[in-house]
Amino acid sequence: MTTPLRLGIAGLGTVGIGVVKIVQSHGELLSNRAGRPVQISAVSARSRDKDRGVDLSSYAWEDDAVALAKRDDVDVLVELIGGTEGPAFDAVTAALNEGKDVVTANKALLAVHGQPLAELAEAKGCAIRFEAAVAGGIPVIKALTEGLAGNAINRVMGVMNGTCNYILTRMQSAGLSYDEVFQEASDLGYLEADPNLDVGGIDAGHKLALLASIAFGTQLKFDKMELEGIQRVTIEDINHAADLGFRIKLLGVAQMTGRGLEQRMSPCLVPTNSPLGQLENATNMVVLEGDAVGQIVLRGAGAGEGPTASAVMGDVMDLARGSRLPVFGQPVDMLVDAPSARVAAPAPYYLRLNLTDKPGAMAKVASVLGDAGISIDRMRQYGHDDSTAPVLFVTHKTTRDALDHAISGLDATGVVEDAPVALRIEAF
Amino acid sequence: MTTPLRLGIAGLGTVGIGVVKIVQSHGELLSNRAGRPVQISAVSARSRDKDRGVDLSSYAWEDDAVALAKRDDVDVLVELIGGTEGPAFDAVTAALNEGKDVVTANKALLAVHGQPLAELAEAKGCAIRFEAAVAGGIPVIKALTEGLAGNAINRVMGVMNGTCNYILTRMQSAGLSYDEVFQEASDLGYLEADPNLDVGGIDAGHKLALLASIAFGTQLKFDKMELEGIQRVTIEDINHAADLGFRIKLLGVAQMTGRGLEQRMSPCLVPTNSPLGQLENATNMVVLEGDAVGQIVLRGAGAGEGPTASAVMGDVMDLARGSRLPVFGQPVDMLVDAPSARVAAPAPYYLRLNLTDKPGAMAKVASVLGDAGISIDRMRQYGHDDSTAPVLFVTHKTTRDALDHAISGLDATGVVEDAPVALRIEAF
Repeated sequence: MTTPLRLGIAGLGTVGIGVVKIVQSHGELLSNRAGRPVQISAVSARSRDKDRGVDLSSYAWEDDAVALAKRDDVDVLVELIGGTEGPAFDAVTAALNEGKDVVTANKALLAVHGQPLAELAEAKGCAIRFEAAVAGGIPVIKALTEGLAGNAINRVMGVMNGTCNYILTRMQSAGLSYDEVFQEASDLGYLEADPNLDVGGIDAGHKLALLASIAFGTQLKFDKMELEGIQRVTIEDINHAADLGFRIKLLGVAQMTGRGLEQRMSPCLVPTNSPLGQLENATNMVVLEGDAVGQIVLRGAGAGEGPTASAVMGDVMDLARGSRLPVFGQPVDMLVDAPSARVAAPAPYYLRLNLTDKPGAMAKVASVLGDAGISIDRMRQYGHDDSTAPVLFVTHKTTRDALDHAISGLDATGVVEDAPVALRIEAF
Repeated sequence: MTTPLRLGIAGLGTVGIGVVKIVQSHGELLSNRAGRPVQISAVSARSRDKDRGVDLSSYAWEDDAVALAKRDDVDVLVELIGGTEGPAFDAVTAALNEGKDVVTANKALLAVHGQPLAELAEAKGCAIRFEAAVAGGIPVIKALTEGLAGNAINRVMGVMNGTCNYILTRMQSAGLSYDEVFQEASDLGYLEADPNLDVGGIDAGHKLALLASIAFGTQLKFDKMELEGIQRVTIEDINHAADLGFRIKLLGVAQMTGRGLEQRMSPCLVPTNSPLGQLENATNMVVLEGDAVGQIVLRGAGAGEGPTASAVMGDVMDLARGSRLPVFGQPVDMLVDAPSARVAAPAPYYLRLNLTDKPGAMAKVASVLGDAGISIDRMRQYGHDDSTAPVLFVTHKTTRDALDHAISGLDATGVVEDAPVALRIEAF
């Protein structure tokens, strides 16, 4: 097959320009590998006049992404606009309706509308590919959907928002507060226009929802994900966790439990010496656990022009080579409507209390924990000048329900000031 | 497409039985994901009577792997016999001649005969898939060939022999000599029947040759690889390297240089805090560096029933889904006959000398190094009771040629006892 594969690129931001650069600089390489040329027919963006540092003069221009999607000389729509609604949604829908394949980096669009879009794609015999939507340049969708296709997946975990990992590791290395590092990250341009997408865990949650659907063959349920951002992570807890041999990460975990699909994106403790614990700065890491393969760890850049464009081009090359899979790895009507389970799997927890410095205070706390069925693995009390002392517990495995029960009980003792901090320790 | 994909499994050792178990236990999962059933029609092994712990009664039996490959009810030959010649080669050749696809875990077969086998496969329109041949369960062939297909690859590195990594990390953690840990590994059954395949770096070299061909679009040249095993790594050098902040790994590196393709498998130093430096026991790790994606690190089990069978099934599932690529990612007649370059890329080196304890000895050594154009980054001399003192150097970047020149010069000074130990420090 030597017919060229013709791309229409909607969105000429960082990633779009990265894709243009690869197609322009690696024409022969791509053609050799795909067995056919990969070309750009047309592009679309908001401003035609902006200097983007690449020569776009040989491509047709469309002001409207939907018009781009419908062009006769476009085989594949590469959607790099972003956003759950508006032109991204309209262009993807238009392309699928025209029977065209779609490659996108848009995690939000798919996490929210993935189910009906996959249904439309299947009805039209089209592919939607989204390697670039999850963990940037790391080929994790491919590893999970294809490489591990012989496995029942036990658990998927990951640090998938580079900005959050930058903030958390920078807080630790510089001893700065969350607010100080948030401001730094903002000044460096690391944050989304709506920073809550990053620090609130929403962006990473979108990615985890996509992985969970593939891993467990379940319908997409982003709205059922437990989301907790990093805004309340303090430098004190980072330092205490480090003393105990842990790092705090914004960790996504999806696993199928007896009570349903557990999906959560929240600050967790992981061992300092584990691959996740060693992950610094904006790097991403995904851990895939299968019943045959055991644990596979994938590490790489989670964002940026080159890495994200690399992922887009991996998808484009698959389409050029004729590899076609269902959107979430199985036909959409086979995806199971699994119940959602709230933090079902038991785990050890990190618990920090500010204990009033009174005789009998520790006895009261220990009694509440014991009554809730929570046993203590390790306890540490720090020296203090105030009327309260920070006390740390690492519990044995317990359920979140038991822990919440204990926390209510602690409140009633009158010896605990401020709300206790409870963070899950993810075994790894 | 609901026609079943029918497998013929040649070889019922650990991996073959692992594949049988996956097909038997995950029938519905495989069928949902592939869109068609995946079945086993027939099996073949040396002994029919052996109890392998799985029920093989519903599969036809062939004593001869070639007869298995030729059966009408076999669509894909799964070759798990091993070895470069004999039944493995014959069965693969027979399958391709019959127009059948091949999935194999046989790195030796492909490293030695990959070029003509790929030519035969292409002439017959067949696929040869070999994910299981490199780094066990880690989907690295897929990541490189497909996920990173938009990248010019700069470098491929990896720790791809779990036994060697077990020996090296066990030497360090237990403070034991190479010979002691080699015996332990032998007692534990970790070694190949010919241990030199492991500790001589040959097995890992086979794997690197396959990765290099895909990465750089070059013809397979295993015979041009520089191979050095771990037999001469001493506990002293492991400890000295640790003092300097490094670990010694049997590291494969392939990169295209101005002088040709450099392929080497040899003991190297990597920073203790790097992902490669942190790799313990029999785990494998592969690092892929592309011009767009940057650095991708993949980690997982490099051997064993489940992980290797997982990789075999990943290939089987791709074939079931209709994904078909050229054997080495490009048509075989496009693979370049690149010249081979001997350790071409400059690097810092670790150099250990036993220096005679005489006035002026260090001055002579420094003079020889300076004359060879080698500058010193760090130097360390240890206290000693003998007439010689161990002296360590970390050089700035230099070529292997300059270093070899200096080592000859050191011999002529008369102040260096024993042969100096020189190990490359791989930047990472």
